[in-house]
Amino acid sequence: MPEQITHYGSKISVFAQRTAIALHEANAEYTDCDVDFENKPDWFFHASPITTLVPVIAYGGPAVPPEQPSTESTKISESAVILEFIAELFPSAAGLLPKDPVKRATARLFVKLLDTKLWPPLFAWMQDGAPPHEIFEVLKTLQMILPKNVQGQYALGDEFTIADAAFAPMWARIRLIIDKGIGEKEYGREQHIAAASRALESPELARFTAYADRLLGRPSVKATWYEDLNVVYWSKKVAAHVRE
Amino acid sequence: MPEQITHYGSKISVFAQRTAIALHEANAEYTDCDVDFENKPDWFFHASPITTLVPVIAYGGPAVPPEQPSTESTKISESAVILEFIAELFPSAAGLLPKDPVKRATARLFVKLLDTKLWPPLFAWMQDGAPPHEIFEVLKTLQMILPKNVQGQYALGDEFTIADAAFAPMWARIRLIIDKGIGEKEYGREQHIAAASRALESPELARFTAYADRLLGRPSVKATWYEDLNVVYWSKKVAAHVRE
Repeated sequence: MPEQITHYGSKISVFAQRTAIALHEANAEYTDCDVDFENKPDWFFHASPITTLVPVIAYGGPAVPPEQPSTESTKISESAVILEFIAELFPSAAGLLPKDPVKRATARLFVKLLDTKLWPPLFAWMQDGAPPHEIFEVLKTLQMILPKNVQGQYALGDEFTIADAAFAPMWARIRLIIDKGIGEKEYGREQHIAAASRALESPELARFTAYADRLLGRPSVKATWYEDLNVVYWSKKVAAHVRE
Repeated sequence: MPEQITHYGSKISVFAQRTAIALHEANAEYTDCDVDFENKPDWFFHASPITTLVPVIAYGGPAVPPEQPSTESTKISESAVILEFIAELFPSAAGLLPKDPVKRATARLFVKLLDTKLWPPLFAWMQDGAPPHEIFEVLKTLQMILPKNVQGQYALGDEFTIADAAFAPMWARIRLIIDKGIGEKEYGREQHIAAASRALESPELARFTAYADRLLGRPSVKATWYEDLNVVYWSKKVAAHVRE
């Protein structure tokens, strides 16, 4: 039986959606605390002393209000680390991390590539309207990892794993920015949004986009996705950046 | 019984020393192939198709010469991923990844901080002679993770884990550059090497440096460390960079 879990997340954070998805898959009991990560309250530095970022989980220790984190709980930072922690803590979430060591390594490699190769150009495209070329090179690399057979539902096959939980929040935002044309008219980014849209429809990426769109139908992904809040957040973020 | 393992590494790569340490801890049988990563042979792109970097492990498939990688083996990239793969594959290396989920998460967080927070300023200091300030801020954060009791031998306690395997190669190079004064006279980096040396001796970091120095006595670390080759490599690297 796991000890108490307090999840410090955010409805608009890409990385906190990852851990919210995993908690949903685990059907976990936990206390949720939405943190304003652009204007962090002082107490948050006690909840996330190592990275001062969301998401973070306070595990164990006494039951306390989230805004008064106990020094007796263990603070676990970094979404990729938390995903595995949840998979290991809850038998009901065991599918998040396959049993086979080769598949586990593949899932971890997928997450690593998302964080080190995809996120930097993706963030630049989302916030700054940078050209999307590099994003699609990385998606092609990720496509190499997907199962070759058409039955493969998710990144590693039939099971929804940490690889999928880690990627779905990124894909939801790619689709959002394209579908809503965020920043398109106002800030002259039509070109780069159109280029991204064309690339997603290219036959070269067909296997990947089919996989990625499938993620958005997963109940845990739908339950943790706040479209209206994300429209507001990304519209503001682009506007603030353009004004700088 | 694990399948065949081919380890594509390098005696001078920080990240390949990590995986060499883990294979040594596992007492694994494997084929070792030293790759000239600054002048990669064409066949290497078939051994490391995803990242085109060392280290990479080709796992399973037929027995082939390392220079003729088979398409039937699984290629596992990224040192942090390979460390966990080895820990899971070999019962003799099970200590590399503790059983307790909280300790596992802590080990993974430690490795993550090494790769995302420590390595960029460390590399800049090693190669470019950049100021070491940021390095020591990160080491202070890592020190927060170490066990508080004096008996703690390694990053998580008595057991040598993936956290230690991941950090030892970085520390060996920090000590090398300071002790040999690499680039010190020739390139006017005295100041930043002296600053680093002083910081390592400060009482603020005492617990951390005692831990880190202990790593260098671990047999697996000694067996995978090539001091002379590293002196030559880093001296050349600094020289090439200064000439640019």
